[in-house]
Amino acid sequence: MSTMPFGRDEYRGRLERTKTRLREAGLEALFVTDPANMNYLTGYDGWSFYVHQGVLVSLETDQPIWIGREMDANGARATVWLDDENVRSYGDEHVHSPAGKHPMDAVAALLEERGLASARIGVEMDGYYYSARAHERLVHHLPEATFADATLLVGEVRMIKSAREIEYIEQAAAIADAAMQAGFDAMEPGVPESTVAAEIYHTLIEGVDGYGGDYPAIVPLMPSGDHTGTPHLTWSDDPFEAGDPVIVELAGCRHRYHAPLARTAVLGDPTAEMADLADVVLEGLNAALEAVEPGITAERVERAWRETIADYGIEKESRIGYSMGCGYPPDWGEHTASLRPGDRTVLEEDMTFHLIPGVWFDEYGVEISEPFRVTASGAERFSSAPQTLVTI
Amino acid sequence: MSTMPFGRDEYRGRLERTKTRLREAGLEALFVTDPANMNYLTGYDGWSFYVHQGVLVSLETDQPIWIGREMDANGARATVWLDDENVRSYGDEHVHSPAGKHPMDAVAALLEERGLASARIGVEMDGYYYSARAHERLVHHLPEATFADATLLVGEVRMIKSAREIEYIEQAAAIADAAMQAGFDAMEPGVPESTVAAEIYHTLIEGVDGYGGDYPAIVPLMPSGDHTGTPHLTWSDDPFEAGDPVIVELAGCRHRYHAPLARTAVLGDPTAEMADLADVVLEGLNAALEAVEPGITAERVERAWRETIADYGIEKESRIGYSMGCGYPPDWGEHTASLRPGDRTVLEEDMTFHLIPGVWFDEYGVEISEPFRVTASGAERFSSAPQTLVTI
Repeated sequence: MSTMPFGRDEYRGRLERTKTRLREAGLEALFVTDPANMNYLTGYDGWSFYVHQGVLVSLETDQPIWIGREMDANGARATVWLDDENVRSYGDEHVHSPAGKHPMDAVAALLEERGLASARIGVEMDGYYYSARAHERLVHHLPEATFADATLLVGEVRMIKSAREIEYIEQAAAIADAAMQAGFDAMEPGVPESTVAAEIYHTLIEGVDGYGGDYPAIVPLMPSGDHTGTPHLTWSDDPFEAGDPVIVELAGCRHRYHAPLARTAVLGDPTAEMADLADVVLEGLNAALEAVEPGITAERVERAWRETIADYGIEKESRIGYSMGCGYPPDWGEHTASLRPGDRTVLEEDMTFHLIPGVWFDEYGVEISEPFRVTASGAERFSSAPQTLVTI
Repeated sequence: MSTMPFGRDEYRGRLERTKTRLREAGLEALFVTDPANMNYLTGYDGWSFYVHQGVLVSLETDQPIWIGREMDANGARATVWLDDENVRSYGDEHVHSPAGKHPMDAVAALLEERGLASARIGVEMDGYYYSARAHERLVHHLPEATFADATLLVGEVRMIKSAREIEYIEQAAAIADAAMQAGFDAMEPGVPESTVAAEIYHTLIEGVDGYGGDYPAIVPLMPSGDHTGTPHLTWSDDPFEAGDPVIVELAGCRHRYHAPLARTAVLGDPTAEMADLADVVLEGLNAALEAVEPGITAERVERAWRETIADYGIEKESRIGYSMGCGYPPDWGEHTASLRPGDRTVLEEDMTFHLIPGVWFDEYGVEISEPFRVTASGAERFSSAPQTLVTI
């Protein structure tokens, strides 16, 4: 308990807002399996999401119940704000046991014990780590219950950040800025990509200003050379070559809160094409940032970008940003609002986004991003990294 | 294609063995969503598993088909052995689009196009990243198809490793050994846990002997002090204190192949209790290693451990090891064989395991592990790390 990143009142407030949404959705209970949602509601922070686990929120009880593998119950007791009686576990015979017990057998028993066998229960149908089998077992055990999709229910509660959450994202941004610089400092022709990734990782974890870094939900992505058109490849042993373009996308992380950041560099002089593309991306990026204010929709922010780059004959089909914050692998995005046509989410103060309008062609690409917070006076950038195509 | 870690023939062999199992299971096709299985069958290696994607294996076609997000198709073309026509993609409007299209809509259309709309199709019901919603959408779109659980089908093909796979695990073990030592070298009273984690990470990624490291599927786990009873907590900013016990579990990784390793250290002199426990763990560990030979069952290996520690009055409920190899977050385990009572998997040459008989009490714990390969003459250790309770 001594190491909890938020006070008990903050967790209680999150729980109350979640219960309000449960009531609005006509649900009596919610079984949360997304590790970020589990953390948000209870404080639980461990690398145990490779086995089934979850958090039960019920309208009838004033604390959530954590349930996971027996071996992880100590870790839960060490990190959650809940009373010990609300940390429950299942035996190891449920773990990766193809023909035997399934963890959801124990979850179903818990739901039954709490009088929820015929309740309306929300589950995160499209959340990470809620497998098709997990759902099938739960439905099988509780034939009287009604299951409703609540994939984004907690995510929507999470969108507006508290002062403490903002503070962690600010610390994460300082780490991200330092890690980006460490990567560029290490980059030169002949140096293997893995060596540069090692320097980036070192800074991400050591942190800055006395703040240690957490592991980010996505590893540093670093496509280079003719791979800059492939946004999600990681590093190799290959050495950088003079003239190589390289895109670095990474995130600093504090107490599971992320500040993602992307920059594009060239080892030498950029081609005219690439320098021009970077100028367009930067103009569009700043047009989008300037459009941000409370009350505007997500799609309107995207439109500012789209109209700007259209003047240069460039189109981009994929979204240019998303709501972000607390996260575990494989993603730091919240999956709620996306900056793209059709998304009518209304921006409010203290929502936080990663604006990342990458443009990739088959042969090269440019990504320059800004994590930002919505304030009364517009977008406030978290990062201090220069907005430029970096020349090494 | 220049960077493929295995030859085309090796991929073809994997595909043929998978098809044989498909026939045995009476299936016409398999839709693979586990990133490690996708990599195994096609070579695909990107951090894109935060969106839905997969690989389709059909008895009728001589190459698998990769399908994923449009933005990732370039990355697929850059890493797979497949012809370009077998790299398919869906548009960005399918991504994290609560009220709109779902990636499985595109997968269902592909299955239909390939004449599989009324086929018997295997899916990885309990695999990572195959969500309850993903399955529901597929079933909805293909009402004439029959879906069968094939969670471990490819995993079972993966259990016996090729010479090249063994080579990568050996390289990964050299990286793991070096990273473990880097951690212990950095550890001293007053140094924050995050600083030690940063040194470990640096070595894991920089690699050794000219081999760069990949990101491991699980971050280094480093519970210390009274957290050594909590196996899956990560690091914090807190400084190490004199007298602290600390457990380090990490893995070196090469081309997605892992060599996991755990050691326990004490910053100072261990208590008599802890030294005694370490002796028992080591004796049990080696009894299990000595029991390993082709033809023995997984549960018999565990029994050698169990009987040894019983002499000291110690019991342990959880499994003591598992099959391992290629992996992506959140796990490097293969989920096929576990070393525990009831698992009658017969060990064969070139199967690879992580033997990790951790014993945790409420106040402290000891983990000392060995990744090993089954050979004709018994267990061959991958790691050269001394088998000892480490004193800092």
